[in-house]
Amino acid sequence: MLRPTITLLTDFGHQDVYVGVMKGVLAERCPDANVVDLCHEIQPQNVAQAAYLLETSYAYFPAAAVHVVVVDPGVGTERGIVCLRTQGYTFLAPDNGVLGPITKRAAIEALVSVTNAAFFLDDVSATFHGRDIFAPVAAALASGVDLDELGPRIERVKALDAAEPKLGEAGQLLGQVIHVDRFGNLITNITADALRAYCDARQSVNVHVGAVGICGVSQTYADVGPGEWVALIGSTSRLEISVNHGDAARLAGCGIGAVVRIERG
Amino acid sequence: MLRPTITLLTDFGHQDVYVGVMKGVLAERCPDANVVDLCHEIQPQNVAQAAYLLETSYAYFPAAAVHVVVVDPGVGTERGIVCLRTQGYTFLAPDNGVLGPITKRAAIEALVSVTNAAFFLDDVSATFHGRDIFAPVAAALASGVDLDELGPRIERVKALDAAEPKLGEAGQLLGQVIHVDRFGNLITNITADALRAYCDARQSVNVHVGAVGICGVSQTYADVGPGEWVALIGSTSRLEISVNHGDAARLAGCGIGAVVRIERG
Amino acid sequence: MLRPTITLLTDFGHQDVYVGVMKGVLAERCPDANVVDLCHEIQPQNVAQAAYLLETSYAYFPAAAVHVVVVDPGVGTERGIVCLRTQGYTFLAPDNGVLGPITKRAAIEALVSVTNAAFFLDDVSATFHGRDIFAPVAAALASGVDLDELGPRIERVKALDAAEPKLGEAGQLLGQVIHVDRFGNLITNITADALRAYCDARQSVNVHVGAVGICGVSQTYADVGPGEWVALIGSTSRLEISVNHGDAARLAGCGIGAVVRIERG
Repeated sequence: MLRPTITLLTDFGHQDVYVGVMKGVLAERCPDANVVDLCHEIQPQNVAQAAYLLETSYAYFPAAAVHVVVVDPGVGTERGIVCLRTQGYTFLAPDNGVLGPITKRAAIEALVSVTNAAFFLDDVSATFHGRDIFAPVAAALASGVDLDELGPRIERVKALDAAEPKLGEAGQLLGQVIHVDRFGNLITNITADALRAYCDARQSVNVHVGAVGICGVSQTYADVGPGEWVALIGSTSRLEISVNHGDAARLAGCGIGAVVRIERG
Repeated sequence: MLRPTITLLTDFGHQDVYVGVMKGVLAERCPDANVVDLCHEIQPQNVAQAAYLLETSYAYFPAAAVHVVVVDPGVGTERGIVCLRTQGYTFLAPDNGVLGPITKRAAIEALVSVTNAAFFLDDVSATFHGRDIFAPVAAALASGVDLDELGPRIERVKALDAAEPKLGEAGQLLGQVIHVDRFGNLITNITADALRAYCDARQSVNVHVGAVGICGVSQTYADVGPGEWVALIGSTSRLEISVNHGDAARLAGCGIGAVVRIERG
Repeated sequence: MLRPTITLLTDFGHQDVYVGVMKGVLAERCPDANVVDLCHEIQPQNVAQAAYLLETSYAYFPAAAVHVVVVDPGVGTERGIVCLRTQGYTFLAPDNGVLGPITKRAAIEALVSVTNAAFFLDDVSATFHGRDIFAPVAAALASGVDLDELGPRIERVKALDAAEPKLGEAGQLLGQVIHVDRFGNLITNITADALRAYCDARQSVNVHVGAVGICGVSQTYADVGPGEWVALIGSTSRLEISVNHGDAARLAGCGIGAVVRIERG
């Protein structure tokens, strides 16, 4: 068997040993794994942001990768943990909607509620299931354990309670910022498909966020001069609002959750 | 032999190549190693914080792991470097107290002063021993080199100059914040054992930090509503002060070093 | 063949999945690679800072390592991508000057313009060449693909448009801060050699940055008391301005680009 890949997507940040300790458990139980940090700087407890980043990145990994999400506002409550298999990939996450977008685009091959404590650490704390449940179960999955050993089959995951873009009263398309990257680019929940459905002529729409208005949707950052605003379809096929060589989030004073308005020009 | 695990715990942060360069030296000298970042965001030169994070995480790694600590306010001075073996684990660190808590809870199997320059890089700088000494020595240890080849046996490591909780004049238990995690949780030096010794009835103590007072010690964050304060025994068996779905450090205006006061209710 | 090493140097930061996704592509196409994060916190689009960090760290990695740089202000424009081989190392980077210092100190063994799209992902986006070009080409290189398969030979890389230290009108040596590390140390573009050429008696020069003046160049941080200013030759053989156990950048109010002035005492 090839060296298995395990990815970690959490809101643990880097100022802590939380991620390191999960890797300790993985090293103990699946020493051959290639453990990849997908991202650990999810806004604390922002399930929708985690769902967006997972949905747009998981397919770049080798089939058979195990994708682990620990963005878990409900840790220590009765929220479930689920394990999903689809398109060859395996996902392990709290059942809080983070896997919703994936089950929308791909058929479920198997889906179980993770309840078999035989795969957990002996002592399960109330606050750190990343270490005590997610890491040992991920190691088991990467080692070839069958999903059905983890717990009973279930029918569906919790849907993601995230705003899709919708039409406003004046006929405009209303979306929102779901992620801000390191460069300050504002990434929205408006997909290329949704934009095309709203208006075929991408050049002629007006894009508004905060006090900023941009005419037309461009191809790349460099379509405008340094310091100028640009709207484009980014590398995850979402509408993105940027400043060439600048920080759009800071300049617009906008962040995650900001409303984005599209109008036909 | 299994792929050896080497962990790195430093105050180098992520804005630099310091950690990357250490991994270059490790890749050169021990190409099979699984190198795990334990944490690199230790508060600059905060030996007590590093000691806490190391003590509460090392045992989650495979036995035979080599744990390397480079939190080293004395770099370039005559401070020693020590290598400790206990419970199968190997620790490599400056002799500044960071290993003190570990030798308190586990018997020393071997302890040497690291002086044999044959294991160092050829040119040892005055300011970057992580690259020039710690990384090549860690690679040697992970490759199976015997501790006694590194230098002479010594009897003990420097004790950690860290405040333990103590009884105040009015009979209250006084501790302090030793770590703040990404969520703003305030982690204290008051262990579950120390709390139990002070007062058996965990529900009836009052916990104070800054201007905040909390009645009773709970099981988990979700024992209180969103935005409410909670004191609980966290995943490292220390008293932790939190706000459910909020940032306790910011809300209390407190950080590392803040005094925590416990009173019987 | 030994497990190949691939290093990543980017300005992607950690709040995103950009680096994680590159590692997904690498895991898919070169599963055995040891992928090392050199640094991801390059100031956005700061090619000179990336060049400095690369030049001073690449040689600590095993020969045959593939060093990948994605600091790429020109992504989506007609800027080229180059692959350089020298001293056994392989470098893959945008042709924006970031490899300039390396070709100054070592003879070029091979240098090609990377144009063969057979090595790219099938769909190349306009904004994320790290995922779509750099990662798959790096995987090919680490798997042993010959440089000449990637594109035509070229003669030289773009030179780095970075200020070298120079002599001022009053005979002083003028340099600048090119990097600030996590401790706030101000690292300058003045090498130990340039300083020696300017003045043999290192003890007798005066070093100025902002409103700070320091007499003499010391050996290590601890040559001065805690909280005191010190100038020294750091671990990359550059003049560095520091405060022992303090944050020089914050205390001087200086950052990257600040002018540093050296005068004979």
